[in-house]
Amino acid sequence: MPKRNLPVSKVYSLLEPGPVVMVTTARKGQANIMTMSWHMMIDFEPPIVGCVISNRNYTFDILKATKECVINVPTVELAQKVVGVGNTSGREIDKFKAFGLTPVPASIVQAPLVDECYANLECKVVDGKMVAKYNLFILEVLKAWIDPARKDPRTIHHRGQGAFMIAGETVKFPSKMK
Amino acid sequence: MPKRNLPVSKVYSLLEPGPVVMVTTARKGQANIMTMSWHMMIDFEPPIVGCVISNRNYTFDILKATKECVINVPTVELAQKVVGVGNTSGREIDKFKAFGLTPVPASIVQAPLVDECYANLECKVVDGKMVAKYNLFILEVLKAWIDPARKDPRTIHHRGQGAFMIAGETVKFPSKMK
Repeated sequence: MPKRNLPVSKVYSLLEPGPVVMVTTARKGQANIMTMSWHMMIDFEPPIVGCVISNRNYTFDILKATKECVINVPTVELAQKVVGVGNTSGREIDKFKAFGLTPVPASIVQAPLVDECYANLECKVVDGKMVAKYNLFILEVLKAWIDPARKDPRTIHHRGQGAFMIAGETVKFPSKMK
Repeated sequence: MPKRNLPVSKVYSLLEPGPVVMVTTARKGQANIMTMSWHMMIDFEPPIVGCVISNRNYTFDILKATKECVINVPTVELAQKVVGVGNTSGREIDKFKAFGLTPVPASIVQAPLVDECYANLECKVVDGKMVAKYNLFILEVLKAWIDPARKDPRTIHHRGQGAFMIAGETVKFPSKMK
């Protein structure tokens, strides 16, 4: 999927609506993917993101060790794969192969971009103090990529137990809010 | 709006999709409302929620002092009011009056429920250690209320600068994810 660089000042507009994302990590040349919904913006610029990753997940160990990941934002066409990624462990399978997803080298971090996702955010862990108590990582987005053809991405939003709300229409109001 | 008690174990299913919410607080009998999008689940049960509230907001001071709030989840019918609440300050106006919203006493906290919202979560601050550095409050949801008539709530999701994505259809996949 051809992507262009997105100014990091606009990253909040991708994550603030609350989409399910896929987090990629890599260690010793071995890449992994997990599905994640527990994330939020913490600051606009540089974009700081908080996310909670269970310490039972394979990704938890890799992220803690490498301090790098990519947040990939999928749309509804990928929903079945996103669920598959969320229901399997990288300790047992190569999820890129198992789900037919394409790893593309990132520009700054070792973790790959998921090519099929319409946006990809290269991140580093900038604060790990809340990891022990809450499994909460503080990330900074270093570089952002987006498919310029996608204006109103039909992101998916987890409602629990495999139910996903699909992003509907967008409406606009005059607002002073960023 | 007639509400029933929602088991707190189900709170994640309301917040995980990432809706814009309205946070109510109260101090000395004076209630306030703000609009918020920067929140995430941190744990299922008891439900722990992280949220970022700018220290420029009136709510920041009240929440820091009283350690109590209600997270109210609006749907698209309230979008215009949600934007209005987000563009004004409780230092200057009574937002309940200004926007025709109805405060209803909560069962545990001093902050009121917004009656017009389809769900209301009574919260207390359980960890304020990240407030100074990130404006990040850790809340526990003590009690949850929901309008049982609303099965697929058309929540709104902020895309930035007054643009909101409206929740579309819900699809379901077999999944082991909670």
